[in-house]
Amino acid sequence: MSQVYLTVAYDGTNYHGSALQAGEPETIEAYLNRAIRGATGEDSPVIGASRTDAGVHARGAVFVFATESTIPADRFVYVLNHLLPEDIRVVESHPVPDDFHPRRQEARKTYEYRILNTPWADPTRRLYTWHVPRPVDVTRMQKAAEYLAGEHDFTSFCNVDSTAQSHVRTITAISVSREGDEIILRITGNGFLYNMVRIIAGTLTQIGWGWREPDDMERILSACDRAAAGCTAPPQGLILAGYDFLQSPH
Amino acid sequence: MSQVYLTVAYDGTNYHGSALQAGEPETIEAYLNRAIRGATGEDSPVIGASRTDAGVHARGAVFVFATESTIPADRFVYVLNHLLPEDIRVVESHPVPDDFHPRRQEARKTYEYRILNTPWADPTRRLYTWHVPRPVDVTRMQKAAEYLAGEHDFTSFCNVDSTAQSHVRTITAISVSREGDEIILRITGNGFLYNMVRIIAGTLTQIGWGWREPDDMERILSACDRAAAGCTAPPQGLILAGYDFLQSPH
Repeated sequence: MSQVYLTVAYDGTNYHGSALQAGEPETIEAYLNRAIRGATGEDSPVIGASRTDAGVHARGAVFVFATESTIPADRFVYVLNHLLPEDIRVVESHPVPDDFHPRRQEARKTYEYRILNTPWADPTRRLYTWHVPRPVDVTRMQKAAEYLAGEHDFTSFCNVDSTAQSHVRTITAISVSREGDEIILRITGNGFLYNMVRIIAGTLTQIGWGWREPDDMERILSACDRAAAGCTAPPQGLILAGYDFLQSPH
Repeated sequence: MSQVYLTVAYDGTNYHGSALQAGEPETIEAYLNRAIRGATGEDSPVIGASRTDAGVHARGAVFVFATESTIPADRFVYVLNHLLPEDIRVVESHPVPDDFHPRRQEARKTYEYRILNTPWADPTRRLYTWHVPRPVDVTRMQKAAEYLAGEHDFTSFCNVDSTAQSHVRTITAISVSREGDEIILRITGNGFLYNMVRIIAGTLTQIGWGWREPDDMERILSACDRAAAGCTAPPQGLILAGYDFLQSPH
């Protein structure tokens, strides 16, 4: 028995999120599990390092699975891509120690949120950006984002349906930049709550519009109340960019 | 009666090309015509400046239509977008003289062709790039592209089903550049033959692979034979970037 580590990119448009759900065949994990069964004959469900919602994309999602197959771990990238739909791609596979559990390792995870700030939406980017026609002041967003760096209770930026025991998380890096006609929020941390990046993106955008002040962020954080923050930005602007495991998974 | 000029962006993935076809409701022009009928009550088919194939995209396609409506020409952008699917967007509308015919004006048209040169395809760009995993030498493509600038008989770069009376066209600018993990071919000219940009993209890519030499371009051009050139690159990498009418359409 050995364990295989997969880095996976996907277009979340046509899926009901990444996580396996009973009776729901259209999830990323369900497709990965079927591909593994096709490759090895084994029923060996993947363990995901995190879950993404319907419509959210990934460039570097991480999954592991156990197998007794003689297929070398680094060859699974070829075998699985052959068995997966083209909107799910394994970009790399390698062996990983049996005791590596992707949710029990210390890791930094990076998300990007893309806002298309043009008068009219671009049809070819409609599935990968949040189209915001109203002018946005990026400097205001940058000032507001600074309040979020570090360790905080992020209850205000968490969907009320969250079942997490603690809402304390650490954001190690956060930036907002204008790149061409897009505004890109990049955020790295040790863990993220349910809808956390999307609520941060929605709140920062309202600050960029002038609806709220950059230093309101301090009050929003300390309220520990979802109602204090702004809207949840839509899923299609969000992409799970990648992981940095503090202990190398190689 | 007045004439309205529309600049239109679309994602060609879900359409059978831009041009109206009898019995085919899923074309860009069919949707524009239905939206105009919805806005004005008039049956006033658009005239397109050019046609794109199924799966080809546009950022700056041009259409005109005649109307007796009292809707100001520059307001059609709002009215039509309300009536169009979100993968077709009017980006601008304005009045244009009645004698302006978009195919009878001297114009320069620019196309871009995007090649994704990575080992594995990116799911979120699969509909907007040609995924080419094999290494490509861009310098060889650039050298080969130089032979195409200027006035030539482009029969070798034209689908054999072309009904054009002359295959002589002028390319006023052509460039190939690597931008991140993509290779982008930009090509401007006074007119393009059926599949011309896609055959140029396919042939240049084969030269970039080392299958043909850059100076083979001279022989391919002079052969005036489609069989002399390389493959037709797939439609999804192609986007009609925009028009530059020598006589202003304003």
